[in-house]
Amino acid sequence: MTASLTEIRELVDAQLHEFLEARSREATAVSADAATLTDVLDPLLFRGKRIRAALCVWGYQLAAAAAGTHRESPLPAELVRAATSLELLHLSALIHDDMMDGSDTRRGQPTIHRRFEAFHDEHEFSGNAEGFGSAGALIAGDLCLGWSMSMFSSCGMERAASPAVLNIVDRMRSDVMIGQYLDMLGETRPLPDDKSIGAARTVVKYKSAKYSVEHPLLLGAALAGADEQLLHTISSFGMPLGEAFQLRDDVLGVFGDPHQTGKPAGDDLRSGKRTVMIAYTRAGASAAEKRTVDAMLGDPDLNEDDVSYLRGVIERSGGLARTEQLMTNLAQTARSALSELPPETAEVTATLEAFSHELTGRKS
Amino acid sequence: MTASLTEIRELVDAQLHEFLEARSREATAVSADAATLTDVLDPLLFRGKRIRAALCVWGYQLAAAAAGTHRESPLPAELVRAATSLELLHLSALIHDDMMDGSDTRRGQPTIHRRFEAFHDEHEFSGNAEGFGSAGALIAGDLCLGWSMSMFSSCGMERAASPAVLNIVDRMRSDVMIGQYLDMLGETRPLPDDKSIGAARTVVKYKSAKYSVEHPLLLGAALAGADEQLLHTISSFGMPLGEAFQLRDDVLGVFGDPHQTGKPAGDDLRSGKRTVMIAYTRAGASAAEKRTVDAMLGDPDLNEDDVSYLRGVIERSGGLARTEQLMTNLAQTARSALSELPPETAEVTATLEAFSHELTGRKS
Repeated sequence: MTASLTEIRELVDAQLHEFLEARSREATAVSADAATLTDVLDPLLFRGKRIRAALCVWGYQLAAAAAGTHRESPLPAELVRAATSLELLHLSALIHDDMMDGSDTRRGQPTIHRRFEAFHDEHEFSGNAEGFGSAGALIAGDLCLGWSMSMFSSCGMERAASPAVLNIVDRMRSDVMIGQYLDMLGETRPLPDDKSIGAARTVVKYKSAKYSVEHPLLLGAALAGADEQLLHTISSFGMPLGEAFQLRDDVLGVFGDPHQTGKPAGDDLRSGKRTVMIAYTRAGASAAEKRTVDAMLGDPDLNEDDVSYLRGVIERSGGLARTEQLMTNLAQTARSALSELPPETAEVTATLEAFSHELTGRKS
Repeated sequence: MTASLTEIRELVDAQLHEFLEARSREATAVSADAATLTDVLDPLLFRGKRIRAALCVWGYQLAAAAAGTHRESPLPAELVRAATSLELLHLSALIHDDMMDGSDTRRGQPTIHRRFEAFHDEHEFSGNAEGFGSAGALIAGDLCLGWSMSMFSSCGMERAASPAVLNIVDRMRSDVMIGQYLDMLGETRPLPDDKSIGAARTVVKYKSAKYSVEHPLLLGAALAGADEQLLHTISSFGMPLGEAFQLRDDVLGVFGDPHQTGKPAGDDLRSGKRTVMIAYTRAGASAAEKRTVDAMLGDPDLNEDDVSYLRGVIERSGGLARTEQLMTNLAQTARSALSELPPETAEVTATLEAFSHELTGRKS
């Protein structure tokens, strides 16, 4: 039976709890002061959607079904461990990403650099609280990145050390960071209209589509020994779905309900994110509105009125409509790839199809 | 024959060159803009002392000699690859460390965040150059951390995936970050004299002794299949030598010749590093001088006169002498541990003994 997202989430959270407790004991053994490093992670660590872990599990179950080696639940603990390591990798990316963007909240909680900042204030430490916050978050993110590797390489699956698997893990880590860099470059260097849509889509592909959807699926499948052809089909499903996933994220970053997203409304506008939706907006807006958009975008002090003005331009210019249209097309391309999968995989395929609707239709 | 540091350095640098070129091609394939991520690393990457790589190689040769499986040179390429991964791990730590300390130079070169800052200025990007610099360095450091893991896990040695080896790799990564955090905590929160020396030594042990000396030796030995007893003896050599190594570093950070260290004189004083030498100084200084030290330490604007005043206090208070004495004792403890090693290891042992003198007597 294909594992449900809820089932996977419970197993992953249990694994993370156990892991963080062990790490906390380890840190405390060095010095009681070091416990802060693990304490700050707790509230943020247990609020993830676990999408990447789930995709890794489903990729594994898909390849296992295709090979006729599909095991009944319970899920193998080694697989859960490998999948959970992706959530630690993701936490590391979020901690460092929030640092760069200077974000205050994540998953409805204070971001890690803000938590260290508060810790500095509470204890009336000398020196600069903001610098302490960034340094703490930098270290915490590095720790989580290292831990994700430790958890993965010690997951207990023989194939975890195979070249095919190691290559996917390597690509997953590198691509997201290259995408991250291109993203921040885009924020500091507006491109001409003819280039900006393509550049924004490259960021989406590397920072998000590969990292959040394609690679987790491929990793799971490779852990089950998938062949080249199956991996190729998985990519033709994962890449477009991953792009659509990020486009939804970008729309929610501007039009989403803060109570559901856990992020303040319009945060993406204040941080000046050069999303595909913004590229479409700039391409479709009047010269005057375009100038205003460029002037307002990335201004951390945008108030509610500014945000609703920008929302208006994004709608008037067709930026929102074109993004929704692209999202629909990508989701369809993704789903059509599922038809290439062998019949034995019907059950997992159905789960992936249903999930693709959730992913692109979600409100948070 | 035991490999010399020069021989190891050449092999490691060649390995790094090849690796960085491949990564640069990879990044450029995503976008020409991404090449900057690898370009900035070039000047810094090829100026390391390669101490960690060398210790890993010697640890391997030591265990191989003890087991009677010692191979003649050339060194196995798999071993060089495993050892080189430690230099990528170290580069990541340096990049993030320099970011936190806001250092301008490293190995006589501009630090990575300063290079990204300069890149931002050169291209007259919009937004804050300093923020761009930190974000770029954050990503570059994350990339190097991920790369070091990729290089290690794909080094081609069967034992690289064994629990014993993975455990050492995990400890190496975690301990240095815990030490890093305790170090920055020490800078923001001066402790009472009775606690400060012990706290400073804990930082030395975790941030430096284990990470720079003990773990690289243990890792190499474990890759050669060393037993518990041999690993234990290696620790009793590596830990005290690693402490002595860091104490020398702290002395050089205040009294070293900038032309030889590649770091501005007194940088450690401006960043307010709470070293063991400073702890000794505060314990031995007059109440008045202690107040002045506390007031000056960590002031980024200390001028040459301030620095020489502090040097004076460090000498008058006995801070320097006590540090040198502790260094001598630790180095002796380390060397005496070498006598416990089996006779078959005589040649590697001689190399380690000679190296222990270089490490504690070095000028850079």
